[in-house]
Amino acid sequence: MIRIALDLMGGDKAPEEIKAGAFMYAQFLEKSKIDNVKIYVVGLPEHVREFDSHPLKQYFETVSTKDFLPMDIKPTEALRRKESSMYVCCQMLKEKQVDAVVSAGNTGALLACATLVVGRIKGIERPALAVPVPSLKGFTVLIDAGANAEIRPEWLVQFAEMGIEYAKLLGVPDPKVGLLNVGTEENKGTEREKQAYIMLKERYGTKFHGNVEGSDINLGTVDVVVTDGFSGNIAMKTMEGVAKLISTIIKQEVKKSFDGILGALFFARTLKKLKKKLDPRSYGGTFFLGVDGLVVKAHGNSDRVAIKNALEVARRGVENQLVEKLKKRLGREGNN
Amino acid sequence: MIRIALDLMGGDKAPEEIKAGAFMYAQFLEKSKIDNVKIYVVGLPEHVREFDSHPLKQYFETVSTKDFLPMDIKPTEALRRKESSMYVCCQMLKEKQVDAVVSAGNTGALLACATLVVGRIKGIERPALAVPVPSLKGFTVLIDAGANAEIRPEWLVQFAEMGIEYAKLLGVPDPKVGLLNVGTEENKGTEREKQAYIMLKERYGTKFHGNVEGSDINLGTVDVVVTDGFSGNIAMKTMEGVAKLISTIIKQEVKKSFDGILGALFFARTLKKLKKKLDPRSYGGTFFLGVDGLVVKAHGNSDRVAIKNALEVARRGVENQLVEKLKKRLGREGNN
Repeated sequence: MIRIALDLMGGDKAPEEIKAGAFMYAQFLEKSKIDNVKIYVVGLPEHVREFDSHPLKQYFETVSTKDFLPMDIKPTEALRRKESSMYVCCQMLKEKQVDAVVSAGNTGALLACATLVVGRIKGIERPALAVPVPSLKGFTVLIDAGANAEIRPEWLVQFAEMGIEYAKLLGVPDPKVGLLNVGTEENKGTEREKQAYIMLKERYGTKFHGNVEGSDINLGTVDVVVTDGFSGNIAMKTMEGVAKLISTIIKQEVKKSFDGILGALFFARTLKKLKKKLDPRSYGGTFFLGVDGLVVKAHGNSDRVAIKNALEVARRGVENQLVEKLKKRLGREGNN
Repeated sequence: MIRIALDLMGGDKAPEEIKAGAFMYAQFLEKSKIDNVKIYVVGLPEHVREFDSHPLKQYFETVSTKDFLPMDIKPTEALRRKESSMYVCCQMLKEKQVDAVVSAGNTGALLACATLVVGRIKGIERPALAVPVPSLKGFTVLIDAGANAEIRPEWLVQFAEMGIEYAKLLGVPDPKVGLLNVGTEENKGTEREKQAYIMLKERYGTKFHGNVEGSDINLGTVDVVVTDGFSGNIAMKTMEGVAKLISTIIKQEVKKSFDGILGALFFARTLKKLKKKLDPRSYGGTFFLGVDGLVVKAHGNSDRVAIKNALEVARRGVENQLVEKLKKRLGREGNN
């Protein structure tokens, strides 16, 4: 049985959209005839109650908590509120009562709970968010996509290591890695990038492609783009904004002209595919790599579709033994 | 007469594409019957020579230099090479022999020459690149789009000030400003953003919209997005990459299906408009705001079209008295 704890109380649209996402996922499991999954819904009693009487209740276990974390919580405070739904989820993962955690709550708080309650893989100082973003070559793993706003150069080397192993797990035989920077020349960027450049070159030799620019992420110049969580978050969210701008312009142009309307009719299928490929909701959730357990961060703004997808991301991560394989490949059994 | 100095030797594709861009711009001036512009082409003798025998030579003056700066030059070294084409351009601006400078050379070097040869507007510690990027509301001024990789929080307030005045010059009556961050909550980001948030709030009150995210740039949530040059560059270049990815996906899908081909035929006009709106070459060049003279930075990767557009950006900047107005509006006549 694959057991996934879902934090009902985390996210801008919690708990209603989180609950709706859980129900949607149960329908998906039913339809797909997947019968080895159990969702542990964790939240305030009045919210978990609904699951006991749901027609698909066989897919759920309910866990009542007394507390939950607001979206603007500070990480240090999150660690003190041990009865919150997020903390309880991580505690359950630590104690192996579940195999994975999904939360759309505050990123910093989830990072803190994942790091300090669940624990880290040996040798990894900071877990990072790894996101496979669409590229001309298929996808590029962006790491860190938003977990650590302030970092040290040596962490970038650890991110590279995790990103490379993650890309291998996703099917890239010999991943190339690049450092996100403001130019391709060696002396670009802040002191942090200059130091990381030297360390990455020393560690990876020719596998290290050198500095890459923002445009290289979606062009797929390398398989893994390594960056701090601040820049990674800016890049990820900028992609979202551009995609929305483009789809809006297309719609507006279509409305303006008869040609456009005709074109759009014929073109509808292409646009639909495009939208699906770029829709951040279709990623659903991203892994905190480096945690000694499977923690999936769903977008803070997640709606029911995103939550459903995040639960599926978690299920596949457990099924594919992501954490175990990562530990093995990093050559570091056991935890800190 | 509007006099623009063009650095023939700066840019990945220099000098050939820069020269071609200059010729293209002369054709544009001829066609548009604009007869009050003179381009001072600055570079090695063997490259400026061609301009003396060009059919449109009346649009050019030639300035021979002995040296030029390679693209990987360090800013400090750029300041020592006083006979380089870039340095000479800035020197000519300082001495009012020209009204504007256009260069596609190394950003850091151009920033150094602009700041220390041309000089700064009083009260501005660091000039910044300001780019009006397309948004759902028309455009958003992104400042700093890549001049200063390492910054201090108080500079972000100065960037805001320049960005607001620039947006006013571009026709926004009462610009709202936001701070680029990894979340909208007040306590997000690094120490730098936390401090800048407080300063911006103190300085602008309700005109300060608070933190904005990467997606807000193209959505047009605010009129001016303030950020450090590292994040600004990542955001700008990420936009480029996403736009290329999307146009490639559309083309691929179109090839795949007959529906797509038909759709594309009808849809061609819409796609052309979209491409033009998002093509980085159509911006051409961006202003270093805060310099006490008009300095236009063209993309390092500029081809002839980009250079032609950058020259036009410079011409309009001079015609609209951008620097003079900015100085007046900032209430700071004179320079440092």
